[in-house]
Amino acid sequence: MVYTGIKELFERGIMRRIAIIGIGSGNPQHLTVEGVATLQQADVVIAIDKGEEKHDLLELRKEILATHSPDVPLVTVLDPPRDRKPVDYQAEVQRWHQARAEVVERAVVENTPEDGTAAILVWGDPSLYDSTLRVIERFTTPVDVVVIPGITAVQALTAAHRIVLNRIGEEIVITTGRQLMDGARHRNCVVMLDGGAAWLTAYTPYTYMWWGAYLGTDKEVLRSGYAHDIGAEVAALKTRLRKEHGWIMDIYLLRELN
Amino acid sequence: MVYTGIKELFERGIMRRIAIIGIGSGNPQHLTVEGVATLQQADVVIAIDKGEEKHDLLELRKEILATHSPDVPLVTVLDPPRDRKPVDYQAEVQRWHQARAEVVERAVVENTPEDGTAAILVWGDPSLYDSTLRVIERFTTPVDVVVIPGITAVQALTAAHRIVLNRIGEEIVITTGRQLMDGARHRNCVVMLDGGAAWLTAYTPYTYMWWGAYLGTDKEVLRSGYAHDIGAEVAALKTRLRKEHGWIMDIYLLRELN
Repeated sequence: MVYTGIKELFERGIMRRIAIIGIGSGNPQHLTVEGVATLQQADVVIAIDKGEEKHDLLELRKEILATHSPDVPLVTVLDPPRDRKPVDYQAEVQRWHQARAEVVERAVVENTPEDGTAAILVWGDPSLYDSTLRVIERFTTPVDVVVIPGITAVQALTAAHRIVLNRIGEEIVITTGRQLMDGARHRNCVVMLDGGAAWLTAYTPYTYMWWGAYLGTDKEVLRSGYAHDIGAEVAALKTRLRKEHGWIMDIYLLRELN
Repeated sequence: MVYTGIKELFERGIMRRIAIIGIGSGNPQHLTVEGVATLQQADVVIAIDKGEEKHDLLELRKEILATHSPDVPLVTVLDPPRDRKPVDYQAEVQRWHQARAEVVERAVVENTPEDGTAAILVWGDPSLYDSTLRVIERFTTPVDVVVIPGITAVQALTAAHRIVLNRIGEEIVITTGRQLMDGARHRNCVVMLDGGAAWLTAYTPYTYMWWGAYLGTDKEVLRSGYAHDIGAEVAALKTRLRKEHGWIMDIYLLRELN
């Protein structure tokens, strides 16, 4: 990890600085005061273009930049292609991170002065199912990294439904659609990165679900109810919305109410 | 729950509005743009005074208000006393929530116009180990509730350490010091509300810990290392810091690195 010894590196001379800024799940108003200030002080904003199908997200990011930092140049990096159904999931993720690291590093080095700051915008928060920190670990150029926390989709979901994640003293689990399909079961379970409708494989008669898609945007859709009542309907709705908008980002909380 | 049928209630007439605003874990810059705007539009800010020993937190809250909304009046409510070591934990929490609901409801009704907005400030985010939503559910006066998400201590911890909560595809558990002492064990485990040093009861030779206290404030202290190397030292540090400042708020991530 290049960035564990920042002070030591600093003493050795000037170094590029990277600010990884969590920008929330879609509502431009969810940016923090610190996020806005850091964005405005950056020399360049590096954005990763994940392809046409998430065009709305790119537009939203442009809107954030136009509102808060119209004078900071934006450099867009094309995300390297990724095999979404690999034989070896871990190996494919490693390969893809390396490819992404190389294009992002090149963009940072080419567009940031040697003593300047590049801002990398991350949906949600950089700590949660995001690869930016891991990508930067692979840089061969020494860089100083700061992380500016942002509102996660988890908080956007609970705020929209006006619910608390846990009942008194209870644990909360944050997991993926993949883990849920593989049999993970918990009393309070937030599921992210579900490409399908994993909840259909994972409910009991007591499972209540709070679901949200496009959270914080003007497309926001919310549903809540017992999974056995609304699960199939939400799955159909998700299919329809994905078709309609060309993409979907959703998240849900499952809770056992027995 | 009074606030589930907002639209219906609205049609029946004018209703007080409560904005529960997550203000982050201590850094005033962690307030969101939406949080600042909501605060500025409120008729009154209701703050709960948790007693002398958290005086620094009250000062920090005053600083936030002075910076962002100097013209909005602040009403401070004395938190009802709570038995921290009750025989029946759940029952005591219920009793305490009811007592708190009554004083908060009185403060809201007495200080907010019938068509006005009261802002209630919450450390971190209203979804995570916070009782404000549950307190408002107990109101007998109909109110419309909005939740403004804020940066949690979890995100302040990971940002300060520049780490990701999960390794690729892994689950994350958020739990309490009490649960950890009761034997909860997980691969990626964030522990909140630990009044002591529960990590000392819960590590293996492979447990790495990232610990932070007073996150986001000028007192911030960070430690990281294998629990068997630094666990006892961090416990002693926590005791010393609590004595020095009169209070402490800390949080940590435990990860099994095998």
